[in-house]
Amino acid sequence: MGSNPTPGTMKKIQKQANLRIIPLGGLGEVGLNMILLEYKGKILIMDMGLGFPGENMPGIDCIIPNISYLKGKSKNILGAILTHGHYDHIGAIPYILPKIGSILMYASPLAKGIILNRQEDFPNQPKLNIREITDNFKVKLGPFQIEFFRQNHNIPDNFGFVINTPVGNIVHTSDFKFDKSPVNEPPTNFEKLKRIGQQGILLLMSESTGAEEEGHSRSEKTIFENLDKIFKEPRGRIIAASFASLINRIQQLITLSEKHGRKVAIEGHSMKTNIEIAQTLKKIKVKKGTFISIKEIHKFPDSKITVICTGAQGEERAVFMRIANREHKVIRIKKGDAVIFSSSVVPGNERSVQFLKDEFHRQGAKVFHYKMMDIHASGHAQEEELKEMIRIMKPKFFLPIYGQYSMLVRHAELAEDEGIPKENILVVENGSIINLNQRKIFKEKGKVPSNYVMVDGLGVGDVGEVVLRDRQNLARDGMFVIVVIVDRQAGKVKGSPDIISRGFVYLRESKQLLKETRQRVIRIVDIAAGSGGAVNWTYVKDELRNKIGKFLFSKTKRRPMVLPVVIEV
Amino acid sequence: MGSNPTPGTMKKIQKQANLRIIPLGGLGEVGLNMILLEYKGKILIMDMGLGFPGENMPGIDCIIPNISYLKGKSKNILGAILTHGHYDHIGAIPYILPKIGSILMYASPLAKGIILNRQEDFPNQPKLNIREITDNFKVKLGPFQIEFFRQNHNIPDNFGFVINTPVGNIVHTSDFKFDKSPVNEPPTNFEKLKRIGQQGILLLMSESTGAEEEGHSRSEKTIFENLDKIFKEPRGRIIAASFASLINRIQQLITLSEKHGRKVAIEGHSMKTNIEIAQTLKKIKVKKGTFISIKEIHKFPDSKITVICTGAQGEERAVFMRIANREHKVIRIKKGDAVIFSSSVVPGNERSVQFLKDEFHRQGAKVFHYKMMDIHASGHAQEEELKEMIRIMKPKFFLPIYGQYSMLVRHAELAEDEGIPKENILVVENGSIINLNQRKIFKEKGKVPSNYVMVDGLGVGDVGEVVLRDRQNLARDGMFVIVVIVDRQAGKVKGSPDIISRGFVYLRESKQLLKETRQRVIRIVDIAAGSGGAVNWTYVKDELRNKIGKFLFSKTKRRPMVLPVVIEV
Repeated sequence: MGSNPTPGTMKKIQKQANLRIIPLGGLGEVGLNMILLEYKGKILIMDMGLGFPGENMPGIDCIIPNISYLKGKSKNILGAILTHGHYDHIGAIPYILPKIGSILMYASPLAKGIILNRQEDFPNQPKLNIREITDNFKVKLGPFQIEFFRQNHNIPDNFGFVINTPVGNIVHTSDFKFDKSPVNEPPTNFEKLKRIGQQGILLLMSESTGAEEEGHSRSEKTIFENLDKIFKEPRGRIIAASFASLINRIQQLITLSEKHGRKVAIEGHSMKTNIEIAQTLKKIKVKKGTFISIKEIHKFPDSKITVICTGAQGEERAVFMRIANREHKVIRIKKGDAVIFSSSVVPGNERSVQFLKDEFHRQGAKVFHYKMMDIHASGHAQEEELKEMIRIMKPKFFLPIYGQYSMLVRHAELAEDEGIPKENILVVENGSIINLNQRKIFKEKGKVPSNYVMVDGLGVGDVGEVVLRDRQNLARDGMFVIVVIVDRQAGKVKGSPDIISRGFVYLRESKQLLKETRQRVIRIVDIAAGSGGAVNWTYVKDELRNKIGKFLFSKTKRRPMVLPVVIEV
Repeated sequence: MGSNPTPGTMKKIQKQANLRIIPLGGLGEVGLNMILLEYKGKILIMDMGLGFPGENMPGIDCIIPNISYLKGKSKNILGAILTHGHYDHIGAIPYILPKIGSILMYASPLAKGIILNRQEDFPNQPKLNIREITDNFKVKLGPFQIEFFRQNHNIPDNFGFVINTPVGNIVHTSDFKFDKSPVNEPPTNFEKLKRIGQQGILLLMSESTGAEEEGHSRSEKTIFENLDKIFKEPRGRIIAASFASLINRIQQLITLSEKHGRKVAIEGHSMKTNIEIAQTLKKIKVKKGTFISIKEIHKFPDSKITVICTGAQGEERAVFMRIANREHKVIRIKKGDAVIFSSSVVPGNERSVQFLKDEFHRQGAKVFHYKMMDIHASGHAQEEELKEMIRIMKPKFFLPIYGQYSMLVRHAELAEDEGIPKENILVVENGSIINLNQRKIFKEKGKVPSNYVMVDGLGVGDVGEVVLRDRQNLARDGMFVIVVIVDRQAGKVKGSPDIISRGFVYLRESKQLLKETRQRVIRIVDIAAGSGGAVNWTYVKDELRNKIGKFLFSKTKRRPMVLPVVIEV
């Protein structure tokens, strides 16, 4: 990367009077948010997030946006804005930076802290160059004059922004909710939002995660009061799980513990780290003496202990799962314990969470899993708030961003309800090239590459369709390797074929099946090899694959991956 | 099976004055419902259902209850009661019958029709002997006098029952909801329920699926009215998906189509079959001329067409998925179509359903997926109804059945709220042996085997922990087979080792890795084989597995299953 466009291309680019908006991730899914803003070849990046793999992606660690479009354009990148410290907005940085080199980044102090901390896990990275965003902070990057404004979410230090561009003003909301009583921060500054709206907004890009939820999101105050009811009752230890990144919920649990005289032990590496960062930056309030180490909990009565830990989604190696499986080094659930799932279930995790709930019940805990603690209900604007944002900004054009396709569609409907003409609203997905000028918004014909890039261990993008399909097939019916040695001179199979099978049948109880299979293998190879002429081994292997595959299916109605190895000696 | 207990055992059994209740499935999960009632060695079976595999069971078709306890007791089985025609209550029959032989079964006409139809897919089954249940039907089986009563659910012909036993009366609710305006059937006969309650109930066994849902389930009438709103509006084709077994919802969609002058095409083999059975038994009402074949839909204007099909859960091969993937032989979504998800999402299917929703949106359909159409909200009693059932039956003892452990616990809390003493309530899971007499209910110390039996193709119970774990590992990082030929006389590797790998890395792009791996393999084997003395090949293989495994991990941070094959020639 880093090569410049040819002079011819440059001319073509500079003639473009339209602003181009190119979403690379987050339009069509929840996660891996990343959008480009391009004017006359100069590019501004908005967010660089990661996403979590679907069930059809076994073994994949995470997915990141496809940045092929940026290839060769490093020098034209003006910088990147990171709206807040959640991984679906910053998590792809260590995978993307090595490909585009060090770029200027803008992030809030908390987001910066989280980015820097994460970077330690990735050696050999380009040096980071992060400038801090504060409320009202302004910066000019090429043709773009940017001004930031605070937005409430479920993590502190979250910023939306308005960009003055050559074609008009564009607002990016970041993730947000309108909350009259947020945690630690002042409520939404509606005066400021209105002032921005009054400047005249050409385009509003607004997040869509809550677009399919009716009404207004719950205030953090309501959540606090609901949690308070649990803390108020006389009970033993309170063990509460959340996301490591859900700083505001963690703050509430700490505050409630202090209110009710409980010490707090934090368990889970990512959560501990995030709290340390937030504490250093004074983004979280903890009284002196509140925190104790997990090993100290036995020094206090159960009624004076809160444990806040990771794993509310049933993640395999998180603290909650280890406690449930009785594998945690200190905590065993006992009668009197109260267990709180203080975030809602991310789609796909329902069964793991149910397993945890059942297990805690079995071990005698009282389990709290209220819908009122929904993370999405609490962190993201719902219908009424989204409409209010549209009313405040009164944009000429509207682009729903950040959400599943069905959410983008619903958000577009809300905008129409608010009086924005249908033709001024664009519902698009990753890879689309949007053109915007003062008169219209439209989609260019072509698309930029936008298929997911999968991260698996050290490999970024090296696992593709073929490897994934093999993994799915292996998971379904296992594999069946046949190793045959052929005596070239005799034209016959030498010895008994070796069979290595996993995930298909329990071999020790399938001796008859294996015996019959070996006989068939020998017959197939002998016929081919004993023909006298030159042997077409590719053909023999195909024969083995097909015939043994069919034989195994007829006996078991399973289709293991049959892999023949024929070796001539 | 079929061997009788020894005379000594028989004596011991006949001394037991307690009634024994042994749940084999459905207590600790939703699905595979099956409970035994045993008195002096005589056994009554209640339901024989199947369950669906969890995500940790790749390739498994279904799970069934463990019936080891019935081994050798065939002659003591008095019969089986099948409460209704859903697979989680009848689906295990073709897997269980071959093991216990033909037994007397009691089922409603509709359940019987569904059981008989399914049996056709299973050759070589014992002959079925099913007697029909109707409302008020009574039968005496050994020490048990049984009387049935209608219960509303989301399939017609569903029966609860009261059993007069030597220790007292026991009520089994079956799945149920209280509905003032059910589909096709009269509402709950509260008079009869009260009369049963007034006989004095020793034990109530009540289903728990809705125990964690507050309030009262929605009436089918409300659901009908909500669906009517969709049908009323002028629009193109209506394409509605449901479960094949959700007969009442299918009936509503048919009735609404007739009301609004739409022809109905049914798509999906299982749904077609179920409707045929229900139609023959007059359990579903369809006007003459309503049904058309899917190929005829082009003969009518779009506004006169309803398609009812399978796949509302995003099942891989169902009609809805084929339509979404543009693989259906007739239907392509077009602008103006309305797509209805008329059942709620079963946990674990959220992502597939979201995929469908997004895809239908993309293809231009209007998508309806209301929470008011929840299958669980509509088919199962919620808190208020469960409490009402307890108030009606006023049982001395209470046993929550059929549900996740957390649901059983919640249901027990509801019973306590209704005044049943804590010590008279038992929350137990599969395999427990409950003892009941007029004075008390308690759990015996031992347990009967109750681990899930997995069905995979033709294999019932042959896939165990080992095979499953292999499948999970294969899915995560794939496999890596190394085949080495060793020249015995030279004590050296012959030629280049063969490597067969799938699901690990894309081999064509990993030539350097494979080359280095081969070099390491040769080095490891040569050192071992060239030592002069007898070679411990088991040790060599372990070395290969460990060292190559570590090498691959160091290069990729992935752990494929390394399988070495060493062949001496």
